[in-house]
Amino acid sequence: MTTEEFRRYGRETVDWMADYLDNIRDYPVLPDMHPGDLMDRLPSAAPEQGESMDMILEDFEQSIVPALTHWNHPRFFAYFANSGSHPGILGEMLTAALNGNGMVWKSGPAITELEQVTLGWLRQWLGLPREFFGIIYDTASIGTMHAIAAAREMADPDSRRKGNSGRLVMYISEHANFSVEKAGMTLGLGQDNIRQIPSDEAFRMRVDLLREAMEADRRAGKKPFCVVPTVGTTSTSSIDPVNTIADVAEDYGAWLHVDAAYGGAAAILPELQNILDGAERAHSIVVNPHKWLFTPMDLSAFYTREPEILRRAFSLVPEYVKTAEDPRAVNYMEYGVQLGRRFRALKLWFVMRHYGREGACAIIRSHIEYAQKLAGLIRSHPDFEIAAPTPFSLVCFRYRGSDDDNRALLENINASGKAFLSHTVLNGRFVLRLAVGNISTRWEDLEEVWALVKQSAKKTATAG
Amino acid sequence: MTTEEFRRYGRETVDWMADYLDNIRDYPVLPDMHPGDLMDRLPSAAPEQGESMDMILEDFEQSIVPALTHWNHPRFFAYFANSGSHPGILGEMLTAALNGNGMVWKSGPAITELEQVTLGWLRQWLGLPREFFGIIYDTASIGTMHAIAAAREMADPDSRRKGNSGRLVMYISEHANFSVEKAGMTLGLGQDNIRQIPSDEAFRMRVDLLREAMEADRRAGKKPFCVVPTVGTTSTSSIDPVNTIADVAEDYGAWLHVDAAYGGAAAILPELQNILDGAERAHSIVVNPHKWLFTPMDLSAFYTREPEILRRAFSLVPEYVKTAEDPRAVNYMEYGVQLGRRFRALKLWFVMRHYGREGACAIIRSHIEYAQKLAGLIRSHPDFEIAAPTPFSLVCFRYRGSDDDNRALLENINASGKAFLSHTVLNGRFVLRLAVGNISTRWEDLEEVWALVKQSAKKTATAG
Repeated sequence: MTTEEFRRYGRETVDWMADYLDNIRDYPVLPDMHPGDLMDRLPSAAPEQGESMDMILEDFEQSIVPALTHWNHPRFFAYFANSGSHPGILGEMLTAALNGNGMVWKSGPAITELEQVTLGWLRQWLGLPREFFGIIYDTASIGTMHAIAAAREMADPDSRRKGNSGRLVMYISEHANFSVEKAGMTLGLGQDNIRQIPSDEAFRMRVDLLREAMEADRRAGKKPFCVVPTVGTTSTSSIDPVNTIADVAEDYGAWLHVDAAYGGAAAILPELQNILDGAERAHSIVVNPHKWLFTPMDLSAFYTREPEILRRAFSLVPEYVKTAEDPRAVNYMEYGVQLGRRFRALKLWFVMRHYGREGACAIIRSHIEYAQKLAGLIRSHPDFEIAAPTPFSLVCFRYRGSDDDNRALLENINASGKAFLSHTVLNGRFVLRLAVGNISTRWEDLEEVWALVKQSAKKTATAG
Repeated sequence: MTTEEFRRYGRETVDWMADYLDNIRDYPVLPDMHPGDLMDRLPSAAPEQGESMDMILEDFEQSIVPALTHWNHPRFFAYFANSGSHPGILGEMLTAALNGNGMVWKSGPAITELEQVTLGWLRQWLGLPREFFGIIYDTASIGTMHAIAAAREMADPDSRRKGNSGRLVMYISEHANFSVEKAGMTLGLGQDNIRQIPSDEAFRMRVDLLREAMEADRRAGKKPFCVVPTVGTTSTSSIDPVNTIADVAEDYGAWLHVDAAYGGAAAILPELQNILDGAERAHSIVVNPHKWLFTPMDLSAFYTREPEILRRAFSLVPEYVKTAEDPRAVNYMEYGVQLGRRFRALKLWFVMRHYGREGACAIIRSHIEYAQKLAGLIRSHPDFEIAAPTPFSLVCFRYRGSDDDNRALLENINASGKAFLSHTVLNGRFVLRLAVGNISTRWEDLEEVWALVKQSAKKTATAG
């Protein structure tokens, strides 16, 4: 492709992207298709000769777009809604063109130092202490895995050489994201050594039961080594009592990792900074700008006050990547599994500068307001009930009917293409989840989905 | 940002990218700066109010670009050179705008199915058997970690629940990429349980010593569970004898994982398909399109003939991501650590279609030809010697002088800004590495760097 062709196709692509984001309400949030439909439509082998970009872009529109779930849709309310914002997209474009790899300082001075700068900025927004060292991983799943590995290194420095001792036990709440348990499995700790502590009526970890469990394990000759509270659990966005959990963790000398992947972003609001109370005592914390800070996938921010322990857990420096030592040169590959490290900080830099703290706060605040307002409407409607507190922008609610009624209601809404909600199970009951998190979402979108919910409920009731 | 502003800044950004790639030879490959220079230049806190995109883009040019190591530069010859090609960049742009997450089929039908389609295409290009199941991970470091975790699941199905047994032993060559050892450490296997088998005079794993080591471990009550040969080692691009290693692995019932992160791409050339001989017997293999198949970072292709074992090692399906079961719907999150999964297949689809197999082969073939030709020039020059065979596009060579001479030579070249080479140590001697892998590299670039090498050597000799 010549430069002029790239310029032309690049502009065409930008125009398509602009139109897409502008007209996104016209797309069904979920595609109307069956598994395999797209595979059946596409050739079973790649072409021998190259094809024209015109044809490729046309096929993108004709075949790929109709098979998309539109995460950037303002009525995408499933899981945790997120945003690929305009400035974030511009950052990603440049990252792709530069195609750098910040494995060591020398291979990407700008990649390395902008990572330090933007994570320093974000640390201040979150109100975390100065001694927290920041590093970007792709996802919170990976960040949490690194936290637990660092915890292992602290509890059992021989493990790097000898392997797991089998004595280590980790503690999470029954509402922790399943990626925490998966990380423990991956690290070879065994599910039997991961205690899921029951939660209270507001879905927060029961600290009394945490202490009991740790004490029982210690008496049994096990070593409690890591506790992972969550700020914004996946099912309900509940907030574990980090400060009292920190007390217990300290008593047992355990690493405290705070999973604030979703909820953490809200701490940039002065009125919500207290959600991270106790996190300043943590050994590590993860917050996902790609969840609720308008940054395209993927960018997860990880902070630790023990970078040397993290480094001991992961550092291996073979000759072919050795560079001159310099106290100011961070070689990020020493702090993680991945040798390949994209230039992720660029998009975060664009986002933080474009919105500024006030702009970012205003958007997050509006999401929370919409969610609270919707929760109010649900609460005052006789046919519906709120199923969990709403500390952030996630509303958990039920139609006052059977689980099957609620299941049918959800399928109805999602099949309409007008909105995408997800679900969870709380106290054995099927519950609908509606998470506000897209930058383009307006109150009118919530009104529309609420009307749709009520209408679908009526249909469900009639059918039953 | 309004749509019209995004359109304007997007086009401006595309123009910058086009100019950058067009004029990239004018940039020094390595920046002239000291660690901390960029950090010192940037504000220590993010702005309170949002800033104009004009200002942000200007700062990008003024501050970030001069601090970049230009991986997309045609005279970037360090590590393994790669390419963010035009079609790949266009794919990344769309991925950022769509901002999808293919954790389950439903959350991204197109993400999931295009991943299946493109990895099927690539599998055919590589000549791998039909039963290989493909999945995209971010990096080969992560892919290899998943391979070893699957190997553990096969050897010790109780480990998921109980944790590592301490009996498992893994085998790599002394020239395996260090990410393999790091993956073993991360999985909690312990460095003591990773055997680095010595290599022969061509830096290939010694199969006789592999067998001896496995036998000794078995006798000692250990369980040899995983063998990782490399096709294209990082130091020299040597090729371990996969077929004979497969014989040994089979005798011990061990998982065979082939690390072809760099070299694998060359197997799309009909005349080089034999480099993967034996890989068809492997349990898994990793090949990085982001290394030598013109795909922007990050995209690593992983194949396994045992997807069910991989799934058993990683599957956890909590209620909040449960979807209807369908035999044709793959939920990729069940096959890995990461819950967040970018739409990576799109850029690979663009690249494979734009170049076609013939076009892709022509580029890789030219890289190999340039490297062979340069190796010939080096070999016939009295002051230089070739330090390792050149099966691909990586040339390992030395100036016939001391290690310090060679170190000075390398620093000289890299300080010139005209090219970036890296180094390794072979048989205790400092060796220069020159890897051809950028899509814009022409033979003239090699001539220029060869002239520079000779000139720097003269300078070094005079100084000494």
